[in-house]
Amino acid sequence: MISVDDALDALIALVEPLGTEEIPLIDAANRVLASDAVARRDQPPFAASAMDGYAVNGAEADQHAQFKVVGESAAGERFAGQIKAGQAVRIFTGAPVPEGATHVVIQEEIERRGDLITITEAQNVPGNIRPAGNDFREGARIAAPRLLRPEDVALLASMNIARVTVYRRPVVALISTGDELVMPGETPGPDQIIASNTFGLHALLRDLGAVPRLLPIARDTRESLEMTFKLARGADLIITIGGASVGDHDLVAPVAASLGMEQAFYKVAMRPGKPLMAGRMGESLMLGLPGNPVSAMVCGHVFMAPMIRAMQGLPADAAPQRTARLAADLPANGPRQHYQRARVENGEITVFDRQDSSLLTILAEANALTITPPNAPAMKAGETISYLPL
Amino acid sequence: MISVDDALDALIALVEPLGTEEIPLIDAANRVLASDAVARRDQPPFAASAMDGYAVNGAEADQHAQFKVVGESAAGERFAGQIKAGQAVRIFTGAPVPEGATHVVIQEEIERRGDLITITEAQNVPGNIRPAGNDFREGARIAAPRLLRPEDVALLASMNIARVTVYRRPVVALISTGDELVMPGETPGPDQIIASNTFGLHALLRDLGAVPRLLPIARDTRESLEMTFKLARGADLIITIGGASVGDHDLVAPVAASLGMEQAFYKVAMRPGKPLMAGRMGESLMLGLPGNPVSAMVCGHVFMAPMIRAMQGLPADAAPQRTARLAADLPANGPRQHYQRARVENGEITVFDRQDSSLLTILAEANALTITPPNAPAMKAGETISYLPL
Repeated sequence: MISVDDALDALIALVEPLGTEEIPLIDAANRVLASDAVARRDQPPFAASAMDGYAVNGAEADQHAQFKVVGESAAGERFAGQIKAGQAVRIFTGAPVPEGATHVVIQEEIERRGDLITITEAQNVPGNIRPAGNDFREGARIAAPRLLRPEDVALLASMNIARVTVYRRPVVALISTGDELVMPGETPGPDQIIASNTFGLHALLRDLGAVPRLLPIARDTRESLEMTFKLARGADLIITIGGASVGDHDLVAPVAASLGMEQAFYKVAMRPGKPLMAGRMGESLMLGLPGNPVSAMVCGHVFMAPMIRAMQGLPADAAPQRTARLAADLPANGPRQHYQRARVENGEITVFDRQDSSLLTILAEANALTITPPNAPAMKAGETISYLPL
Repeated sequence: MISVDDALDALIALVEPLGTEEIPLIDAANRVLASDAVARRDQPPFAASAMDGYAVNGAEADQHAQFKVVGESAAGERFAGQIKAGQAVRIFTGAPVPEGATHVVIQEEIERRGDLITITEAQNVPGNIRPAGNDFREGARIAAPRLLRPEDVALLASMNIARVTVYRRPVVALISTGDELVMPGETPGPDQIIASNTFGLHALLRDLGAVPRLLPIARDTRESLEMTFKLARGADLIITIGGASVGDHDLVAPVAASLGMEQAFYKVAMRPGKPLMAGRMGESLMLGLPGNPVSAMVCGHVFMAPMIRAMQGLPADAAPQRTARLAADLPANGPRQHYQRARVENGEITVFDRQDSSLLTILAEANALTITPPNAPAMKAGETISYLPL
């Protein structure tokens, strides 16, 4: 058995970032930028008014000073001329500041009669003008790799970048194994249960930016597993669920080996989720998850998620752990790293009493997995513990 | 001007949850459950082994006791008979426990010779069996409304629920207004800038589960705005960006009024984002956001996001604020609620120095918006402040 950290290092060492593709900006959110994006212009491209008001020469902007309004500068259509002594131009937020003007008097601080305005308040000069390039200059870069959020998309748009180069989304084949499984909606036999892991992992993979493909359930025969592995060809990552323990019916390892799987490691010192397997299989990576429902989802968060991020060019530490204060004492841990279902609220985390790895109800109540390292001593309520958000 | 809280209450009062639809479970993640989901069976449906080992009568499971292995119970195919005195059945994780057996000896704690096994360790009896219904019973409910996460999808699958009733996704029309705007990829005139808000809001809407529709940019004429509003017909929510201030070119309010908009409120005491407008317009809701890039995105998080959640049947408080410790002192606030771009790391939050509402670069660096109530006193480094995660 190897440690969780060593297993993660081995997994990440297997991964190469996938190729890249150019896509429209409108579809760029939640994708990972693969090449630096370079601003195609200054923003603002001209000195712009920050307020609705009147543009004047700041040297003249004394309280009680009077100006003649000689024109208007609107967003999209500037005042074409130049401001002379005693002149003002009506100006709106975002509009170009006319030549000769160095200050904008906000409209709440003037009195207007016809074409004449009088400043009613003392001014902080210069004010209410955003210089050209105040936000960014042409050539400014958004550095890759970067997971693009809505705020990044807005910034890219303002840089006049209509297409971006991003990493390809990983195609992931999901294979459930076991004679005991039927799909939701089917009528199970008396000894059967419903395949649930593939559905949970399918949803998690979509959240991570992958393209999951649900394959038919593989039965506990070499022939069925081999056929299903063949259906998975072309996937960037093949995930099997179940059949990876040491039971006499666990065929995933021998069948994968016969199909050329080079196994990187097999068992990981963790609870839940010990029987984990990973390696390379032709053009695909292969990850064998335990069949236990909770174990499969926990391993999905702990191992699959970092792989999917790394395949999209993100650093391995891109899923930061968080910390919270324990609501109650926690006993000392055994030799395996322990991931426990917990609920964090207002910075305080409650570890659930029932942790049997078959309990999906407890997993659905949880919004966090606390992380207790191997052989960690007992912890007291109020101490800080690391967790993975769910 | 009304307070942010009053504006939010008014907005949520405008919203009715949308209708519902039944969808396949495979597409249910990130949707909101609209009717309680009811388990169609017990899980596990039978007493199941929690380990690979040997099922025996617990009363006989003494250290050094010997048993004859009379069959096998595998996941998906149980041992058909009944265990008699001195008999054991080979059993695998998840397999049904045979009649007559009350305990599973794990395989590491026996010695096997041919068909005979001997228990090598003292046993805690009964052990390693999951009773029927241990996770949930037939009829167990997942209560609506509930935003479905991958863990919920796994649980729903295990309940044999293949289709779920969820709230419909809100269709949202996005209208940018202003003669100064061109779309990314176009060549702007000397007085023009690139429409960025719609792209950022489009991405945010998708993250929130809405179906955004980007309409053509409306120009600063009544005709153009009216035409664009007509294109928006059928949307559950129409969002305008810009043109909602009091400048002479701000036509959104009068044109919307002429098309029947019943305005719920107009200005909100907040920074950035004062000119906000909301109301009902025929079958649609209407939200008018300020045109300033940062203001638009901040109002998107503060007002649009709770509306979209409420339209999907979630409670208005479904986007919990978080708290963090201030990295540096924060000055007293003025009369408007202040949302400041900040970066939170390891529970400590740094409010950026530059907060001008035109700076998208600062927004893209931020991962949080700190919330300072109106007239809040100055705060010291180390004090706890609320924030919205970005």
